[in-house]
Parts: sequence; C-alpha cells; structure tokens
Amino acid sequence: MARPRKFQEHDVLDAARQQFTEGGFHGTSVDDLSRATGLSKGSLYGAFGDKQTLFHRVFGDYCDGSDAMAAARVDGPEDEALLRLRAWLHSPEDTDPYGCLLARGTAELAAEDDAVAARALAAYDTLLDSCRELVEQAQRAGLVDPGADAAALGGLVVTTHRGLEALAKAGVDPATRNRIAEAAIGSIAS
Amino acid sequence: MARPRKFQEHDVLDAARQQFTEGGFHGTSVDDLSRATGLSKGSLYGAFGDKQTLFHRVFGDYCDGSDAMAAARVDGPEDEALLRLRAWLHSPEDTDPYGCLLARGTAELAAEDDAVAARALAAYDTLLDSCRELVEQAQRAGLVDPGADAAALGGLVVTTHRGLEALAKAGVDPATRNRIAEAAIGSIAS
Repeated sequence: MARPRKFQEHDVLDAARQQFTEGGFHGTSVDDLSRATGLSKGSLYGAFGDKQTLFHRVFGDYCDGSDAMAAARVDGPEDEALLRLRAWLHSPEDTDPYGCLLARGTAELAAEDDAVAARALAAYDTLLDSCRELVEQAQRAGLVDPGADAAALGGLVVTTHRGLEALAKAGVDPATRNRIAEAAIGSIAS
Repeated sequence: MARPRKFQEHDVLDAARQQFTEGGFHGTSVDDLSRATGLSKGSLYGAFGDKQTLFHRVFGDYCDGSDAMAAARVDGPEDEALLRLRAWLHSPEDTDPYGCLLARGTAELAAEDDAVAARALAAYDTLLDSCRELVEQAQRAGLVDPGADAAALGGLVVTTHRGLEALAKAGVDPATRNRIAEAAIGSIAS
C-alpha cells in the first residue's frame, strides 16, 4: 500500500499529535483520528498501522523534538545560561509544541505501555542532563554558587517546568506562573 | 433503588478512585468499574449515576482530601514550617492517596469538563495558599528572607511537588527526586 507523500505525512502526523494531545490515547478513537487527519481509517491503517503504532510514532517524534530543543538550549554563551533556563520556564504553553504530549502520554500510558515508559524516561533524563549542564555553565560564569549540586538545581528547573504546566492545565493564571518562574531562577542564582 | 450501606459506599468509592487513577476516565469502562467495585452495572448506576457522575464524586472527594491535607500542613509550629514543606515534597507517591488523581484528572479532563476544571483550580489555589502561608511562617521564624515573595516561593514548592510526581510517573529514581526536593527547600531557605 502506498505511503502518503512526505508533506502529507508531516501534516497527518501533526494532526494526529494534536488529536492525541487533546483527547489522550484512550479518549481518541480511530474515527477521531480519521476526522482529524482527513484520511480514511483504511488509509491511516495502511500508512501508520493501528492506533497504538501511530501513537508510538507521534510520541517518539515528540520526544525527539523535546530532546532537540534541550540540546539547543545548552548551546550558547555560558554567561547567558540562566537567561536560557528562564526563557524555557516562561514559555507559554500554547507556543511550545513539545510542552504537552510528553506529560500527558506519560501520565496516561507509562504504567501500561513499556515502550512509552522507556521513551518518556529517556526524554526526562535528557531534560535533567541538559539543565544540569546549563547550571554548570552558570557556575563557571559565576552566576551560581560553584559548590552547589548542579544536578539537583537543574532538576529543580525541570520539576518547576513540569509543575508550571500542571498549573496551566488547571487554569492558574499566567501572572502567577511567571512569578513562580522568576522565583525558581532567583532561588538558584547566587 | 437502595443505596449501599455506609462502609460499602466508602469501599466502592475507594475502588472506583483506584480504577480511575490507573485507567483514567476515558480508559475506564463501566465494565472496569463493575469489576473493580464488585457491584453490577445496574447497582453502580442506581447508587452513583453514570460514569461521569461517579467520576465527579470521586474527583471531588479526592480534592477535598487534598484540601484537608493542605490545611493540616499549615497547622503547626512556625519554626518547623520548612520541615513540613520538606516532608510533603519527600512523600513517596505510593503512600499519598491524594498525590495522583488531581494531576491525572486535570490533564485528561480540564479542557473538556468545566466541573473538573473548576474543582481542580480550587484545589491548586488551596495548595498555593497553604504553601504561601507556610513560607510566611518560615519568614516569621527567621528561616526565609522576610523580603522574599512568599507567594512565589510557596508556588515554587507546589510546582516542585507536581513536577516530582511527573518525574516519578516517568520512572525517574527516588534518589534523584529526593535530591531535587532537598534543593527546592535549600533554595528558599535564607
């Protein structure tokens, strides 16, 4: 069976990602995916396999994107490392295409799907490593106490980012969330 | 139709909570609930209404429990306020019956169910208020800079708690999570 052409495949995967992000895995039917992507159920199955296979593809692509963005944050002047962490914490959820399916997919499926659990853990480990590296950069630039536990402070940035997303989901206003983001960066700066 | 007796009702709601926590709302069928609670579908419906009504009941009870635990944390000696925040962050997920359905229910349903969204926001506001009060206690006890933004630092504790749960879901090991919890408390102490 023919696969869709490249630009169509990207559009289909993007639509499937949006659908899974909004509806979750169990809350999304193959009919929902057909409607969201504009492909018939038969075409979807032929090109991407069943719902779980398509979810694995979308979730994997999503985690790859998260990894790439983490690597991009590490890359930059060491004396601006805290600014890059700060910008990450201030990212409004709606402009960050990678801010959401990782959390949702992990919460929904990690306990029942080993492949999702393994990919999620790798993505979190990448986030933890990248934030540790950024704190180490800030330490070398004299912005953070050189004796501090860089891995723990980097982890604090990661948990703050994940917690801010949980608060956003619950409807806590952006001003409150941004004050918390400032407090997080302020609390690790020396 | 007769309602189950009191102790049965508690057991049924507890079993339903566990089922919804593990399976999510959309991932849980009425058959799953019947199996988990030991009640027939007809008895479940007669006593608790449809799946959404039962979820609202369980989610509301759960948020009430979260609110009560937040109030209990606020209540205590001011010079031990940071210790109470620290103990909260170190709570192993599996011993905290209220640590999980709030996050999961909010992520899954807040965008599509106004009642869940409103109850979740109230629960998060209670968490934010209680942690602000605990930071204010610590400020009065001389443990935190009295000029610091207590609401923002309290919010940092809340986001850390929520983020640690997300990391736990992803399988990040307890030792790493506990180091982050220590860093969070250390970073707000003066």
